[in-house]
Amino acid sequence: MKLYNWQAPNPRRVRIFLAEKDIKIPLVDVGDGPRLKAEYLAKFPQATVPMLELDDGTVIGEAIAICRYFEEIQPAPPLFGTDPLSKAQIAMWEVRAIDEGLMAFAEFYRNSNPKFVDRALPGTDEPVPQIPALLERARGRVRRIYKKFDEQLSHNAFIVGDQYSIADISALCAIDFGAASQMGVESDFAIDCQHVKRWHAEVSARPSASA
Amino acid sequence: MKLYNWQAPNPRRVRIFLAEKDIKIPLVDVGDGPRLKAEYLAKFPQATVPMLELDDGTVIGEAIAICRYFEEIQPAPPLFGTDPLSKAQIAMWEVRAIDEGLMAFAEFYRNSNPKFVDRALPGTDEPVPQIPALLERARGRVRRIYKKFDEQLSHNAFIVGDQYSIADISALCAIDFGAASQMGVESDFAIDCQHVKRWHAEVSARPSASA
Repeated sequence: MKLYNWQAPNPRRVRIFLAEKDIKIPLVDVGDGPRLKAEYLAKFPQATVPMLELDDGTVIGEAIAICRYFEEIQPAPPLFGTDPLSKAQIAMWEVRAIDEGLMAFAEFYRNSNPKFVDRALPGTDEPVPQIPALLERARGRVRRIYKKFDEQLSHNAFIVGDQYSIADISALCAIDFGAASQMGVESDFAIDCQHVKRWHAEVSARPSASA
Repeated sequence: MKLYNWQAPNPRRVRIFLAEKDIKIPLVDVGDGPRLKAEYLAKFPQATVPMLELDDGTVIGEAIAICRYFEEIQPAPPLFGTDPLSKAQIAMWEVRAIDEGLMAFAEFYRNSNPKFVDRALPGTDEPVPQIPALLERARGRVRRIYKKFDEQLSHNAFIVGDQYSIADISALCAIDFGAASQMGVESDFAIDCQHVKRWHAEVSARPSASA
């Protein structure tokens, strides 16, 4: 199998996940500057990264689905929880890390960066104009998710309890992507979030964080 | 346990899921017209629906996390897949149904409906102004997800293969929510989507659809 990869937060979620499980697979770089290579778009019209191609040609898109696949074929160490409640709580926080975290950071980045003029949404070749009014909305979303993470991490070692999980991976990738828009953990957006900073230092020190 | 419920697409995902598993639990209505009741917001500052409260007071938010919890405690019938590949493909399509489907319909609804002036995002009491420029963006997103579903359903009985799953539930709830903005399966947005219409009629005929 092969993982179609790019320097972007969603492929990073999978790379960290694989590193935590000590799974090594070939990576295929599909970036062409700030765009995806034409041959990749032809192969995978979904036009998102990452994508996992199995040896029989089956393709799996969406980072969380790829991680789920590897959790099933190699359960150890478990990164999606170990019992019904921890599985549910990890799923809950993973969704929040993406829907309220990564999407907010991405909304700001895509609607402000000159490289993404007319490409304000991923996953399509149709022109999608940037909407400047989204920047203020995104700022509010970012402030709220930092507060939410901080409250959760005030009484949890990791995002869910004392076990590192996919929820930590997704939260880390979201927050670090924020740094591209001066919204990272060192920015004013996280200024009072001591628990996020403590956690961020710990998860960033794991070897997987540089995968 | 109790499910805090409202007439909205995310609670409907859980209600259908429970009906498919023939699980009956008490529902607590938390709607106050177009807003959530103050006592619910005090209990669950996340300010989203649905929410599952366990007998020990533990709360689980996010529809997909609640469904995952019930899948774990009552695996039959399986609605998240049965082997690594089907589990990954169902997770992939479930994410698309929400991120590219429900979010697009919700973006249109929240940014156009007079009931949601200054409440254009869920999950917060802070004012979030409507952004009219999002309506055209949402129209494009809706057209794209219908085409994507239609292509997938041209060679699958259900969203993934021949087994009804959570991907069907989330896609159904997304599309039916579109009808609130004249973007449902009978609208011009789905005009050429014969496979979506065939599938929609089938999944809507299941007793669970009215849950």
